[in-house]
Amino acid sequence: MLPLSQYTGLYTDYYELTMAQGYFLNGMKDTPVVFDYFFRKCPYEGSYVVFSGLQEMLETLTAFSFSGEAVQYLAGFGFNNGFLDWLKNFRFTADVFSVMEGELVFPYEPCIRIEGNIIECQLVETLLLNLINFESLIATKASRIKRVAGNRQLMDFGFRRAQGLGGLQASRAAIAGGFNRTSNLLSAFQNGLEPSGTMAHSWIQAFEDEYTAFRVYSDLYPESCVFLVDTYDTLKSGLPNAIKVALEMKARGLKLVGIRLDSGDLSYLSKKARGMLDDAGLQYVQIIVSNQLDEYVIKSLMEQSAPIDGFGIGTAIASGKDSGALDGVYKLSMINNSPTYKRSENPTKTTFPGKKVLYRYADQTGLFQADAIALENEEVIERILHPFETGKQLLTSNYRQEKLIHKVMEHGKILIEKRAAVEAAEYLQSRIKYLPGEHTRLLNPHIYKVGISPGLYRLINEHN
Amino acid sequence: MLPLSQYTGLYTDYYELTMAQGYFLNGMKDTPVVFDYFFRKCPYEGSYVVFSGLQEMLETLTAFSFSGEAVQYLAGFGFNNGFLDWLKNFRFTADVFSVMEGELVFPYEPCIRIEGNIIECQLVETLLLNLINFESLIATKASRIKRVAGNRQLMDFGFRRAQGLGGLQASRAAIAGGFNRTSNLLSAFQNGLEPSGTMAHSWIQAFEDEYTAFRVYSDLYPESCVFLVDTYDTLKSGLPNAIKVALEMKARGLKLVGIRLDSGDLSYLSKKARGMLDDAGLQYVQIIVSNQLDEYVIKSLMEQSAPIDGFGIGTAIASGKDSGALDGVYKLSMINNSPTYKRSENPTKTTFPGKKVLYRYADQTGLFQADAIALENEEVIERILHPFETGKQLLTSNYRQEKLIHKVMEHGKILIEKRAAVEAAEYLQSRIKYLPGEHTRLLNPHIYKVGISPGLYRLINEHN
Repeated sequence: MLPLSQYTGLYTDYYELTMAQGYFLNGMKDTPVVFDYFFRKCPYEGSYVVFSGLQEMLETLTAFSFSGEAVQYLAGFGFNNGFLDWLKNFRFTADVFSVMEGELVFPYEPCIRIEGNIIECQLVETLLLNLINFESLIATKASRIKRVAGNRQLMDFGFRRAQGLGGLQASRAAIAGGFNRTSNLLSAFQNGLEPSGTMAHSWIQAFEDEYTAFRVYSDLYPESCVFLVDTYDTLKSGLPNAIKVALEMKARGLKLVGIRLDSGDLSYLSKKARGMLDDAGLQYVQIIVSNQLDEYVIKSLMEQSAPIDGFGIGTAIASGKDSGALDGVYKLSMINNSPTYKRSENPTKTTFPGKKVLYRYADQTGLFQADAIALENEEVIERILHPFETGKQLLTSNYRQEKLIHKVMEHGKILIEKRAAVEAAEYLQSRIKYLPGEHTRLLNPHIYKVGISPGLYRLINEHN
Repeated sequence: MLPLSQYTGLYTDYYELTMAQGYFLNGMKDTPVVFDYFFRKCPYEGSYVVFSGLQEMLETLTAFSFSGEAVQYLAGFGFNNGFLDWLKNFRFTADVFSVMEGELVFPYEPCIRIEGNIIECQLVETLLLNLINFESLIATKASRIKRVAGNRQLMDFGFRRAQGLGGLQASRAAIAGGFNRTSNLLSAFQNGLEPSGTMAHSWIQAFEDEYTAFRVYSDLYPESCVFLVDTYDTLKSGLPNAIKVALEMKARGLKLVGIRLDSGDLSYLSKKARGMLDDAGLQYVQIIVSNQLDEYVIKSLMEQSAPIDGFGIGTAIASGKDSGALDGVYKLSMINNSPTYKRSENPTKTTFPGKKVLYRYADQTGLFQADAIALENEEVIERILHPFETGKQLLTSNYRQEKLIHKVMEHGKILIEKRAAVEAAEYLQSRIKYLPGEHTRLLNPHIYKVGISPGLYRLINEHN
């Protein structure tokens, strides 16, 4: 749950309130609507997104309300008293359908569908977008990094470079996307994880010499030491001192966990370090590296067979560099039980009308082949049509069909078990192994097929 | 103040706690130290940073403490009972020296200096970096956008694309950097601003036709209408309907404030829209544009003389795209009243030892010519030396010297008046006009001179 205390209702854009009041004063407050959440473009020039943020969103929707202070603040802008009184008792009572946290999703797919009255559905737009866009952005980044790092340890070190308080959500999403640990204490607390981290350069500088700094630390934390070896000179001072203390520990039956390289060429230094450690009989000492890492740097280190056991990642995982945001939007698709949509001069900016579901098709080996956006009443889809290019279609007869959208909230009440970040991560791992490798390539991946059902195709064309 | 309730003490990296306990158990808890905050590289390939986040940082330092729940959580990791008892009563009691919010700062400048005991100074590292790095990143982005937009309205529309809760801080920093308004209701509330925003596409779709949607809105909000005109067809439907309602309003003595373009070619459409509005006698109706704007798009629109009155900016201002983070660091420079520093194989990653201040030099016209990092006891600096290249120097005799670092906190108590975001923005405007234009160019700007004093030069060389 976000640390918003009594201000959940203000966690929105102002126009949600001006529109809400408009509906209220215009006798439309009970008008039934359906909204969809979807995005148009994958971040990082990738081909998929790891859906994340659902748990945070559902909890925040449950708490979404207007405190006395919030209502008083709004009164200052001339909002109508009847509307303000109504806001005081506002609770979100809509139904929410969604894909599960950790699911792989693709452009144009309605990942979330909300059904309720027009005011409640409108008011939560900003909140929903803010949480889902950001956490999905970061979970996606984490999964890209995990793809290249394999089973090596991935540690979120990004709190200091995070976008303010967004660092808490980034850290959770990093775990959901496949990271093993975080240095972020508040995130570890909120997510029930063990935090990670040992020492900064200042620790080394605080003692008369580097050897003493390591030795004092090893006396204090004999079971969890990772020595930072680049404060003075990595190969001439840091490693010899770390090895000296590691051997003293070994003599006392203790094992140094690792050393951390935080500057210089990490391929060159990790190879040198591995050699020096091995020569000293310290094969068990791990090599952890940090400093401006992302999926591209890690891939290059792996290609050069750098003997690295773990990566500490900062800016890239905290901020989703080089994509600042996922471009997810929230669009009206039904009003008064009739389909509606926004046309656009550019067909790819059009929205899809109607109450929709999402199906996935897998071949006999389980590999995902295509998804279909269908109308709710279409249960079996025999062919999928290209959403924008006339004539392209795919037959689904040889594929197994799976429904991806589930009811997760009914009348404002959460229906699903709380999914911890590590559970979302497990689910993701169980899915991503079925996504053909050409879709997970870092650069210029193959586009995954997302089509529309014949029923949705007819509905769009009736509207045109 | 951040909405962290009782969790301020956990707003940090885990290693700050393991080091803190190490100092505590090693009899070093009263060891006096000095830490500096500085960054090495400007974001956006620019030449300056707008320093921001000080107010938030000072307030959070004042509140920084460990609740019973936080201490209990830490106890689970085996922290020492004596240390945990000490943490229960922990308050930040250091002295803080800083440049003012809205100041222009440059690489390597010690923008913040903290003097206190080693534990308190270490514990707040992550918090300080998280707040100052992010808010300065965004204030800098805002100032770049303002540079190209001139006096046209700049509105922060970024909440939905913001990095989760970081959107609150982004919005404040956007204002500090020169934005006029925000759509973010909670930010407006916290910063005492009037929020901005009118309608989404869903409002238009919620009525039987676009004309009705505009008319109903104008009846509700006759004094603040901005009609969104691209739901169906900007030139064939949106503008004609907006003009029709605007003329009806005019007949009743009311003025439509503006129209908003949110897709298509904004140069082409704004010119067409201006023509249609003017032909209808609606010269006073403003044209607001939005959709993936940043300083480069706005510059291009201005070069094409697009008749735009205001810009709504989302992702770029909320996330500081295309730089995910400012790389600011926090380094130990004094311990036990002696200078210390981190050496590095790479001289630009070295830190500067000693208790330092920052001076700025302006010529007779007031234009900023250079800054100097000096030792605290050097009051007049006659020449400034290049920090990394031997032999380069600048004489300061013809320049006016200004001290940029001021004491802002004493023994944990804030000394300065609270500076609102709009006040930081005013200060920035009073400063940036004295920064020669070649330093504010968007692309490949001239590097601003930052040198070191003879005293600091001697100290560094004694240490080597």
